[in-house]
Amino acid sequence: MKSLEEKILCEGSAIGTEIVKVDGFLNHQIDVRFMDEIGSEIAHLFANSGANKILTVEASGIAIACAASRAMDCVPVVFAKKAAPNTMTEGFYSAEARSFTKGTVSVLRVAEKYLKPGDRVLIVDDFLATGEAALAMAKLVRDAGAETVGFTAVIEKKWQGGGDKLRELGIEVKSLAVIAAINDGKITFADN
Amino acid sequence: MKSLEEKILCEGSAIGTEIVKVDGFLNHQIDVRFMDEIGSEIAHLFANSGANKILTVEASGIAIACAASRAMDCVPVVFAKKAAPNTMTEGFYSAEARSFTKGTVSVLRVAEKYLKPGDRVLIVDDFLATGEAALAMAKLVRDAGAETVGFTAVIEKKWQGGGDKLRELGIEVKSLAVIAAINDGKITFADN
Repeated sequence: MKSLEEKILCEGSAIGTEIVKVDGFLNHQIDVRFMDEIGSEIAHLFANSGANKILTVEASGIAIACAASRAMDCVPVVFAKKAAPNTMTEGFYSAEARSFTKGTVSVLRVAEKYLKPGDRVLIVDDFLATGEAALAMAKLVRDAGAETVGFTAVIEKKWQGGGDKLRELGIEVKSLAVIAAINDGKITFADN
Repeated sequence: MKSLEEKILCEGSAIGTEIVKVDGFLNHQIDVRFMDEIGSEIAHLFANSGANKILTVEASGIAIACAASRAMDCVPVVFAKKAAPNTMTEGFYSAEARSFTKGTVSVLRVAEKYLKPGDRVLIVDDFLATGEAALAMAKLVRDAGAETVGFTAVIEKKWQGGGDKLRELGIEVKSLAVIAAINDGKITFADN
């Protein structure tokens, strides 16, 4: 997605060799108009997926998932929770995930009634790095007897391997911007 | 907002005398089409506020804030973080808030560059209960030298007092559904 690559170069920045900072439009301040472009692109990429539900994880995935839903006839969005609130009173699926940027381990939870056998689930997140959160979400879908019909991240850091791990599970991965490397603060995108 | 009250009665449920569970459309699964109605209502209620920014807190506020932004010419959304990621490398404002539903204390943080003196900030959240998160966000705005031009929650639990605390600070509070009481699982809305 060319406009996204330009926005990352223009408004984002690289920290060290591993981290891309895009908190000006994606995961702290949100550019809602641009988010709608992102949603349309996701809908376009997965137009033939037959997805009837979008799964993401709190917090930064939520705006992206809602934008994608809006462009996909408002299929329901479900966001996995990282803590169990006292309103989660019924059965839930759970899976562990380590956060690359926070250095913590979270247990992702989705109430059983919001993932059903037969659901065709598109998984959406802001970043794909080592794939911890994505793999955990794919496990939630599997545990529910549902099917992951695709995965998309707004930004994939290709060298961190998450994409390959998902493809090994047979999941179709199409990220909107794929970064091949960061060197000396310079971001290089992959060709795909 | 009549359609919201009906949705709460139809799809929500009461737990004990204090908790309203609306995870089917608001804070676990999200009904994006209805979220847009919520956004339009917020834009209508605060049409004369001159808000140039919307502040919320992760996670359940994000979808609501984005929907409101979309109906308010896409003013930027900023969501306060409950944990400091390693990408938050510059100065930030912080304020403590206790979660009513999780029983934990969080430190809410917003990077200084996303709240500026002169900003006119509309604060948005899913629930207004005791007002902890709302008061913390109002403090972030004040610390930045910005102005809180209004507060809205999708659901206000009036008897828990958060609304009054905000009004004592001179903040205009207009929630979309105001619950007066929960008795024997029955939700009663306030008249306003």
